[in-house]
Amino acid sequence: MPAIILVRPQLGENIGKAARAMLNFGLTDLRLVAPRDGWPNPDAGPAAAGADAVIETVRIFETTADAVADCAHVYATTVRLRSVIKPVQTPAEAAADIVVASAQSGILFGAERSGLHSDDVALARTIITVPINPAFPSLNLAQAVMLVAYEYSKQQKSLPLDMPPVRILDAPSDQDALDGMIGHFERLLEDANFYFPPARSVVTRHNVRSLLTKPAWSAREIQIMRGMLTALEKGDRSKI
Amino acid sequence: MPAIILVRPQLGENIGKAARAMLNFGLTDLRLVAPRDGWPNPDAGPAAAGADAVIETVRIFETTADAVADCAHVYATTVRLRSVIKPVQTPAEAAADIVVASAQSGILFGAERSGLHSDDVALARTIITVPINPAFPSLNLAQAVMLVAYEYSKQQKSLPLDMPPVRILDAPSDQDALDGMIGHFERLLEDANFYFPPARSVVTRHNVRSLLTKPAWSAREIQIMRGMLTALEKGDRSKI
Repeated sequence: MPAIILVRPQLGENIGKAARAMLNFGLTDLRLVAPRDGWPNPDAGPAAAGADAVIETVRIFETTADAVADCAHVYATTVRLRSVIKPVQTPAEAAADIVVASAQSGILFGAERSGLHSDDVALARTIITVPINPAFPSLNLAQAVMLVAYEYSKQQKSLPLDMPPVRILDAPSDQDALDGMIGHFERLLEDANFYFPPARSVVTRHNVRSLLTKPAWSAREIQIMRGMLTALEKGDRSKI
Repeated sequence: MPAIILVRPQLGENIGKAARAMLNFGLTDLRLVAPRDGWPNPDAGPAAAGADAVIETVRIFETTADAVADCAHVYATTVRLRSVIKPVQTPAEAAADIVVASAQSGILFGAERSGLHSDDVALARTIITVPINPAFPSLNLAQAVMLVAYEYSKQQKSLPLDMPPVRILDAPSDQDALDGMIGHFERLLEDANFYFPPARSVVTRHNVRSLLTKPAWSAREIQIMRGMLTALEKGDRSKI
């Protein structure tokens, strides 16, 4: 699991928000390099909003080099392109590499205003840049951490914390139930003189069938529709 | 471009943060349904941190139905699975559909605490759920908006606001310059009696070549390395 390394973070609130964003997507290894206001920071806990598992295991380092000493793959996040010549990846591309890497990865995030120093970037082999509106590139620290953690969780299919979306869509009903409903409609429509003129009735029947086949209603939904048709058929609203 | 629709948002700060997250990823159509504290809200502007283009064009609606009246595709975002039976998509899946849709899409986000009402969800054909740590699913309103906008910007390759990452990696030098550097190394290593014993020297030469070929150094980097070797060769540090 990659380490998130905040280099010289200024506000405890942002450290807490970063921890919260990490845990939302299953990351827990948070490291701080020389946090401006020391550690622990009373503003971090409330902003973490319950991400205690991350806040309580934060590790503090004096230098960025110390913080990445155990990392085989070091990434530096920056929105601005720098003069250093390194490969640039999106969070999604970096996440794909991190997931298959067998050794520890570490991802550096700079301070709120100044970002990473050139010395920090020099420790990294790869730059991560979030593709963003160049006219409005105002991503804050916790948001940048969240996007990286989010992309990691998308790639890390085996992450037990990751919950893939459940398809709660019921299967369509079988054709027999569908035909029963279409027949019910046709009976009512015939009574209402809908299939007029007769010359058009075959096309009209096809149109009605297509219309009612398209929703792929489930058996339960077909049952509800049959109830609606029966109610319309009876016509006496006091009995519905 | 999809509309972001905040239904009964409570805090102006969150409206501002949502606007900021939208503009970061190129979205500008923000709609509010019955914001609790009315509109304009003095807390929204500061939190938008410069996303004026979004804040100034916000549209206010009394009901969710009014807000989506022009939308052919309505999505409801929710982290909790509901009893309603609708297809569930991730933000990435929904973004892929939204980008190819020819008609207006609208994405509903519920109030900070309560989320969307069942009545709101009933207006949508599709649910968007962010796969998240089920033990810590604390995504806030602006973060949810950001993830949806971010995924949209990733799909919308033609969005003029979207800046794909630039590959600033220089091409590797040509083989001639590489061979020159390897030859330079070999000359120094021979002088230092590195290729000993002679029986191993072919393998050792191959290892050295592989090691120096792997970095894919650019012509400029090869030049720097040649300078380093020359300096080592001269050995007189006062002249470097």
